[in-house]
Amino acid sequence: MKCDYSLYLVTDRAILGGRDLGQAVEDALRGGVTLVQLREKDTSSRDFYQIALALKDLAVKYQVPLIINDRLDIALAVDADGIHIGQEDLPLQVARCLLGPEKIIGYSVSNIEEAVYGEKYGADYLGAGPVYTTTTKAVTIQPLGVEGLRNIKNSVSIPVVGIGGINLDNVREVKKSGADGVSIVSGILGSLDPDCTSRKLCEAWQQG
Amino acid sequence: MKCDYSLYLVTDRAILGGRDLGQAVEDALRGGVTLVQLREKDTSSRDFYQIALALKDLAVKYQVPLIINDRLDIALAVDADGIHIGQEDLPLQVARCLLGPEKIIGYSVSNIEEAVYGEKYGADYLGAGPVYTTTTKAVTIQPLGVEGLRNIKNSVSIPVVGIGGINLDNVREVKKSGADGVSIVSGILGSLDPDCTSRKLCEAWQQG
Ligand code: NI
Repeated sequence: MKCDYSLYLVTDRAILGGRDLGQAVEDALRGGVTLVQLREKDTSSRDFYQIALALKDLAVKYQVPLIINDRLDIALAVDADGIHIGQEDLPLQVARCLLGPEKIIGYSVSNIEEAVYGEKYGADYLGAGPVYTTTTKAVTIQPLGVEGLRNIKNSVSIPVVGIGGINLDNVREVKKSGADGVSIVSGILGSLDPDCTSRKLCEAWQQG
Repeated sequence: MKCDYSLYLVTDRAILGGRDLGQAVEDALRGGVTLVQLREKDTSSRDFYQIALALKDLAVKYQVPLIINDRLDIALAVDADGIHIGQEDLPLQVARCLLGPEKIIGYSVSNIEEAVYGEKYGADYLGAGPVYTTTTKAVTIQPLGVEGLRNIKNSVSIPVVGIGGINLDNVREVKKSGADGVSIVSGILGSLDPDCTSRKLCEAWQQG
């Protein structure tokens, strides 16, 4: 599956402040988001499944891929387009074996070694970060910067999406590093107008 | 797959007090446990997978089925014999569709309505409870008692395993209700000698 990774939305219900996830995601899709990753933490499998079903409908409606974070069973259950896994999730080779060759598998990396490993063992794209300092994850990791992101991009031939602290002010800088897209959590869903914010990010990326 | 549900061990690392899970499960298997269900909470997918791999080896060695609680992806990843799901997990029909007809699916029920639903939508066996009051789960539910368990057993034709507060003192009473087995968490793994405890439970069940 050929993907447009340029404006990659990752969900986080915690930053919605009570707003509806489906509504916020649809706003972002109207604004031009090109891919949606559903990420849930501490949610029952039943609730995760129901939320994934709702986002699957939106993904079909807006013709963008739906990626499920970590949970391969939820991805299978709603026939999502793929999964995104990190170092704490199922091993990459096991995931590829269970999903088959057609589904998308994204892999989180924070250095060249992990990037090369990801490409070698079947990842379709890499999520590389954090590019900038971010408050989305509790753990503080030394950010890659655009130089680090460029080095990762140059070490592999699969698409690389930058993640972590990316917003309207730095999206052009990220594009100049050679990345294939920007992955954004709070920058879109944390804004009160995800439609407008996505539109501006889209324009900035295209002009960048 | 034809199963012996008579002494059904459910794991809980929280009650091991630092003892090794694999060692405790192997002790219980030596004592006569007939089926092992791996249940993990708040564990990363990677750790869950690694623990499941270790228990899979034990299950093969002792020739008993390995059942994974909730996580269908982990069950697929280690080629477990099946999964056990409850009301908060993936819908039964979805799980059956993804696992195919050969794998075991267990379904947690606490009343006749859920039991009939479980049998209708593809469960291979039911875990019915709580039979007695129990401290394993935080939520307090009115126990079924052996009468309630008997009523559930009489409402379906698939195997029914009693769960909740079952120990050496009441295992014979549970068997008299018509149940096909007893599912035990803290009664085995919470004891300092799972081998000996399982042996006694086994004997009590067979003589009951
Ligand atoms: Ni707007």
